[in-house]
Amino acid sequence: MIEMEKFLEQRRRQVDAALEKFLPKAKSSPVTLHEAMRYSMFAGGKRLRPILCLEAASALGANDSEALPLACALEMVHTYSLIHDDLPAMDNDDFRRGRPTCHKVYGEAIAILAGDALLTLAFETAARVRSWPRYKHDQIITELAVASGSRQLIAGQVSDLENEAKEIDARTLRSIHERKTGALFTTSLRLGAMAANATPAKLEAITKFGRALGLAFQIVDDILDVTQTSEKLGKSAGKDIKAQKATYPALLGIDGAKKAAALWTSRAQAAVKSLGSGAKRLLDLADHMLHREH
Amino acid sequence: MIEMEKFLEQRRRQVDAALEKFLPKAKSSPVTLHEAMRYSMFAGGKRLRPILCLEAASALGANDSEALPLACALEMVHTYSLIHDDLPAMDNDDFRRGRPTCHKVYGEAIAILAGDALLTLAFETAARVRSWPRYKHDQIITELAVASGSRQLIAGQVSDLENEAKEIDARTLRSIHERKTGALFTTSLRLGAMAANATPAKLEAITKFGRALGLAFQIVDDILDVTQTSEKLGKSAGKDIKAQKATYPALLGIDGAKKAAALWTSRAQAAVKSLGSGAKRLLDLADHMLHREH
Repeated sequence: MIEMEKFLEQRRRQVDAALEKFLPKAKSSPVTLHEAMRYSMFAGGKRLRPILCLEAASALGANDSEALPLACALEMVHTYSLIHDDLPAMDNDDFRRGRPTCHKVYGEAIAILAGDALLTLAFETAARVRSWPRYKHDQIITELAVASGSRQLIAGQVSDLENEAKEIDARTLRSIHERKTGALFTTSLRLGAMAANATPAKLEAITKFGRALGLAFQIVDDILDVTQTSEKLGKSAGKDIKAQKATYPALLGIDGAKKAAALWTSRAQAAVKSLGSGAKRLLDLADHMLHREH
Repeated sequence: MIEMEKFLEQRRRQVDAALEKFLPKAKSSPVTLHEAMRYSMFAGGKRLRPILCLEAASALGANDSEALPLACALEMVHTYSLIHDDLPAMDNDDFRRGRPTCHKVYGEAIAILAGDALLTLAFETAARVRSWPRYKHDQIITELAVASGSRQLIAGQVSDLENEAKEIDARTLRSIHERKTGALFTTSLRLGAMAANATPAKLEAITKFGRALGLAFQIVDDILDVTQTSEKLGKSAGKDIKAQKATYPALLGIDGAKKAAALWTSRAQAAVKSLGSGAKRLLDLADHMLHREH
């Protein structure tokens, strides 16, 4: 476990160094906008999506440098979606990762524009990769756009808003999570696999891993919201209950939710068994995500 | 002039038919989001950017179908930027093209997300073109992302917000317009030229045309804001004065501004003389834009 923590820390530093390079300089005009983009990008995130991308690439034999622009593009999309979700008109969150949210520091107008700019920069950054024999730029861009678009990431946020304070069943809850978290998770892994010029069979294995892992991740997230303190989470704990959002612990009980998370983790792991020893770190990562405490 | 009106109407119908195809169906889930995207996309816009794109492609001998996905992507970026600019935290506009703005109809949260979704869809749509011998997908996507990004389109909106109620000089005003309107104008023409696999010299001529035309367009826009009624403009007239925004008529007087618009139009036209008879419609379009009344 300590080994894994060290490894993840090293990965985070690698991703941060690449992001530093791809983001506009802090002092470059328009200064306020660029500062706001950097404020939210370098707010101590776990860099989970970029790490999944790099690990999928590595599992299939690619160099990190091949996948790094895609890894950074994924984190830009994730960060833009957090900035916009935190806005007063949306989830109205004042804190994120223990710090005031972007609009609390820079105002709503700049926060909206900083999110827009990060989304735009994500596509510019994704276009920086070379193309591979099996996967060209148009497919890479389409993959990223579909996962971030109106039927996936954004649809998840819409359902989340529309279902607040409503009773929903397990199927609806799963479908919200699949779009809100799962799609970008799966795409992170798929883009990493594409950067390794994966065969269709290997890409399919990685895709199944991503879908199951995304669900497990979200179930654990819901459990932590109930069982952990705000301090440990770096965001307001208990906020799902306050917002009367449907969660897995509410539907299945804490024990039931824990069992479900373990089940989806093992399904994820089974999906990449066929990749052999290269997939060792993907298996470890899935275990680590299941047992995390924040 | 009547011929030109007829021609533009035909072009608008062509662009609308293509947009209809690229946008998610109105009844598809999430319904509210997709309705909001369509509400703003089909609000009677002039389709200027797509038309410029198609005309540049046509001037250099390409078929319309080669440039249509790019033309639609440009209009999606333009529409997303209008939806976000109209938000209460930004320009706080209740009307646009004679109809309530997106957030007045669907609420702020959905308006923010509809803008996000259109920006994302723009990149998905741009990736649908084929690649040409001189211009590949990565260059097309980068061109669109840079023009829409934190140093151009979004930077223009930031300066606009920051310079409200401030006295600025002609140079600052021009630099705001170059980023807020000019960059996407120029890119519309450049992407059309790329869809015609333009030589570097022809691409350069089209680029110069776009820069000068963008300035002329913005000067005329400022003049119309002072001289026309809200009814004719389909948006609140006199709103620059109310917001104490610097404008060309305020800096140069109405006559001075009219002269400047004419000068930049003729500069634009001079830039594409070298393209010969193929450029005839670009010249006519520049004249038409100079003499428009709304």
